[in-house]
Amino acid sequence: MLVEGRHFLPHAEPHALGHKALAVNLSDLAAMGAKPRWALLALGVPAVDEKWLAAFSDGLFALAGRHGVELVGGDTVRAPQRTISITALGEVPAGAALLRGGAKAGDDIWVSGELGGAALALAHPELAEVAARLHAPEPRVGLGKRLRRLASAAIDVSDGLASDLGHILERSQVGATIEYDRIPRPAALGRFGTGDQEQWILSGGDDYELIFTAAPDRRDEVMQISGALKLALSRIGSITAGAGKLQILDASGRPMTARGGFDHFGT
Amino acid sequence: MLVEGRHFLPHAEPHALGHKALAVNLSDLAAMGAKPRWALLALGVPAVDEKWLAAFSDGLFALAGRHGVELVGGDTVRAPQRTISITALGEVPAGAALLRGGAKAGDDIWVSGELGGAALALAHPELAEVAARLHAPEPRVGLGKRLRRLASAAIDVSDGLASDLGHILERSQVGATIEYDRIPRPAALGRFGTGDQEQWILSGGDDYELIFTAAPDRRDEVMQISGALKLALSRIGSITAGAGKLQILDASGRPMTARGGFDHFGT
Repeated sequence: MLVEGRHFLPHAEPHALGHKALAVNLSDLAAMGAKPRWALLALGVPAVDEKWLAAFSDGLFALAGRHGVELVGGDTVRAPQRTISITALGEVPAGAALLRGGAKAGDDIWVSGELGGAALALAHPELAEVAARLHAPEPRVGLGKRLRRLASAAIDVSDGLASDLGHILERSQVGATIEYDRIPRPAALGRFGTGDQEQWILSGGDDYELIFTAAPDRRDEVMQISGALKLALSRIGSITAGAGKLQILDASGRPMTARGGFDHFGT
Repeated sequence: MLVEGRHFLPHAEPHALGHKALAVNLSDLAAMGAKPRWALLALGVPAVDEKWLAAFSDGLFALAGRHGVELVGGDTVRAPQRTISITALGEVPAGAALLRGGAKAGDDIWVSGELGGAALALAHPELAEVAARLHAPEPRVGLGKRLRRLASAAIDVSDGLASDLGHILERSQVGATIEYDRIPRPAALGRFGTGDQEQWILSGGDDYELIFTAAPDRRDEVMQISGALKLALSRIGSITAGAGKLQILDASGRPMTARGGFDHFGT
């Protein structure tokens, strides 16, 4: 559920908003290896604004069309502020869904694309080169499908690396060691202080990349997928036996303090 | 999508609200003859109120449990006012779904239970005997399933008889004649003026009864279902050939003026 004033600004560009509202749902399906099929849209609006609705719909249907997603239901009501709730449904062969609970000690930890760009764009709206990371995330549907029966666990980065990887660790009852310098990031981050960079890379949300784990003997297959999709897939660390423990190492191998991700009820 | 201040009052009893939020969705499935299976809940709340959430969940899960519905996903966010968006999913054998487009001239028009009670309860909250019609509607799931391959068209009464029957007429390209006196209604309505009564019975929403059409040679079967479910099923009129025309006749057979149902964007 996306609420105006909290998840997006009143003047947010409606085409991008329509795209993103669906994209974040398709990203959840991608993280499970599912093929998106259907979506339902519940929309609350203060008044009928035909121009806004047309642009919002265009953004939503353009992404839906690219992924073969059909809008099969929903609801439109009046609400004090624009409110968007989308349910997306997909299909995956029985037993092939990517889950959070399958990571094993010794598995590699991979991430698609780059992290921190969306958080940087939120903090610095003037940076045109990262704006799309925040406003037009691309759900990694093709990657998710190719990771079926390859990845041992997967999740998408909605709340930040530390927080979302934490869900895998919790469900899989394992730990992880991440090498901070290996985490791919947009070049524009280099212009800012190391504290901000760490915050955006480790705890920035909204990147909608996939984090996944896979046995080390699957590295060649992962690299083949990267080549086929023309999508960077970076090995950033390993799963360890220490249940729930997330250790992030700096360039000299010293542990950094991991910060939590975005708290839905935080301040 | 149910929005506080528009679809329910801030002090609405949370247990009843949890029930109703799911019930209106199960009612949509019932109207298609589907067996409810899964639901997803997106919930916006201004703050974490454990007591409210517990009562809301109790109401929702009690109804879900009675119908074998599993909550399989959702989202919780902060919003300026409580906002509830539920997606319910069900199953129906291929080709057996009840649709709006199958009514044929000569078909009987039936309605389950009574109409007007929810609108009366909204107008007169002091009437304890009809409060449940508004706050605890019972989705007609059992009826919907039994109407598969029997009813030619069906819909649930969410916006009012005239409006919802209108959807059947539009999709089926037929008309209808309704005998006003045959429409079943709570006894408590008799205490109020005829103008109010007509408004509540013909255009009151929120009753969540089923309107359905069936060939006249299926009357015995409909009555058997009524007996088996201990649920009144009343024949209130007939489908006619006049596309889109809804005629409501008073006790002396004279046409009454049909009023439209609740307009989501009306005043």
